[in-house]
Amino acid sequence: MKIGIVGLGLMGGSIAKALNHKHEIIAYDISNEALTYALNHQIIQEGYTNLETFFHETNIIYLCLYPQIIASFIKENQRYMQKGTVIIEISGIKTSIIDDTIPFINKDIDVVFTHPIAGREKKGVSFSKETIFHNANYVIVPTKNNKESSIEQTKELAHEMKFKNISIISKEEHDDIIAYTSQLTHILSLALVNSDPKTYDTFRFIGDSYRDLTRIAMINEDLWSELFLENKNYLLPKIDSFIENLTNYRKLIVENDIEQLKEMMKEAKNRRLKIESGGKE
Amino acid sequence: MKIGIVGLGLMGGSIAKALNHKHEIIAYDISNEALTYALNHQIIQEGYTNLETFFHETNIIYLCLYPQIIASFIKENQRYMQKGTVIIEISGIKTSIIDDTIPFINKDIDVVFTHPIAGREKKGVSFSKETIFHNANYVIVPTKNNKESSIEQTKELAHEMKFKNISIISKEEHDDIIAYTSQLTHILSLALVNSDPKTYDTFRFIGDSYRDLTRIAMINEDLWSELFLENKNYLLPKIDSFIENLTNYRKLIVENDIEQLKEMMKEAKNRRLKIESGGKE
Repeated sequence: MKIGIVGLGLMGGSIAKALNHKHEIIAYDISNEALTYALNHQIIQEGYTNLETFFHETNIIYLCLYPQIIASFIKENQRYMQKGTVIIEISGIKTSIIDDTIPFINKDIDVVFTHPIAGREKKGVSFSKETIFHNANYVIVPTKNNKESSIEQTKELAHEMKFKNISIISKEEHDDIIAYTSQLTHILSLALVNSDPKTYDTFRFIGDSYRDLTRIAMINEDLWSELFLENKNYLLPKIDSFIENLTNYRKLIVENDIEQLKEMMKEAKNRRLKIESGGKE
Repeated sequence: MKIGIVGLGLMGGSIAKALNHKHEIIAYDISNEALTYALNHQIIQEGYTNLETFFHETNIIYLCLYPQIIASFIKENQRYMQKGTVIIEISGIKTSIIDDTIPFINKDIDVVFTHPIAGREKKGVSFSKETIFHNANYVIVPTKNNKESSIEQTKELAHEMKFKNISIISKEEHDDIIAYTSQLTHILSLALVNSDPKTYDTFRFIGDSYRDLTRIAMINEDLWSELFLENKNYLLPKIDSFIENLTNYRKLIVENDIEQLKEMMKEAKNRRLKIESGGKE
């Protein structure tokens, strides 16, 4: 197959690397630099800065754009696409994007909304890496318009990229659980670094725990600020629930309640061990 | 040298492995199982369950016990130690342990209070690993009683274990910065797991960010509940400062203040990048 990538950044580049063993990969980007890099490194076979020409060449496209421009991109450009084109969208948010996009999609194309739960704390095609998808989780959020064949093709490609679990859920379920597993997690990491008292040379007093918890604070703030705001309805209650739990730890420490403290810690440990073992008790 | 280890768990075992290339290692533990394991795996050369005999064999000892029993262990057992014995204590808390221990230490022994900032989310000698110390941070908290030669010997051994930065600071400074870099970090990881809404099969919707932030929630609750309580005076203000920062993120999200949100994120990113580069801008 000839697979198209729109937006050749970290994710687009990683998808290209994960699929270029078996398929021809072509990419559209506004940056000549990204295209040249990808061509020089044999990540893609062809690069385009002209959308119309690009759409002529492919009818299956990964859309790797920032959340807030996805709806308008599809609205403005779908008329140039080939009849029967399948667009696979990959952002970390679903409800607002689906609600904004669905009313405009013409019946000649099929947009599959997905979320590969993978990434790196870097941006740009030069940091792309196909292994970020290995054994990772993938989510597909079908709409009533999706053809069964488009969903199947999306799944097949996810298997080729070596994703492990592929889940089919609703947009609301996606945004609810991802607000917890992903967005809350990033905010905690950020707030931990922002809390640095700066009284000491922090780097001389950290261990792997601090390093691990703060790695994702080296964030792409343009992307993640959009994700936080777009998903605020689900994210705010997750922040509140976290503060409630943290305040509970605080209270038990104030009261020297070591038994209850250990209970909460054991509950967390057992739950995390269950996750480690892939959901098995 | 013949180096003694009191308490052959994860840390004692890791110290033994890190030093047994150059030195003879002997260990005391109440558990025959731990000693047998370590003997069978050539981690130590001799194992003892009798303290008096053990103290006869060595005059430099790593004390690898839980925080709350360190003072009483020294108080009760120092009379059996050889004159001139150097005890290197390694727990993650300093003020309370030093204050509890100093009044009782007899002048024939020298106790050096240190903190190797390294560990694993497992317990027991079978999980010990010398590489946890490679490029890690080490802290020495000298007391007015310490002989210069004891401090030098402790440093020399830390270098042999391949620690990177060795810092000499006061007990208050240690507990203040460690409350932030280590104890707060562990509580955040725990509270994140405790906040799991449990509505979905969480493991199907996590990425590396959630995995990294929650790894240390697989905690040794006996050890860490002691560390939290012993260091509460420094830890509670760190929790409060974190909640303040998190609440600030919450407010900016509620107000859709994307510019200020990005500012806070950039501040965190730049600070974390500075830590990544070992303190250099």
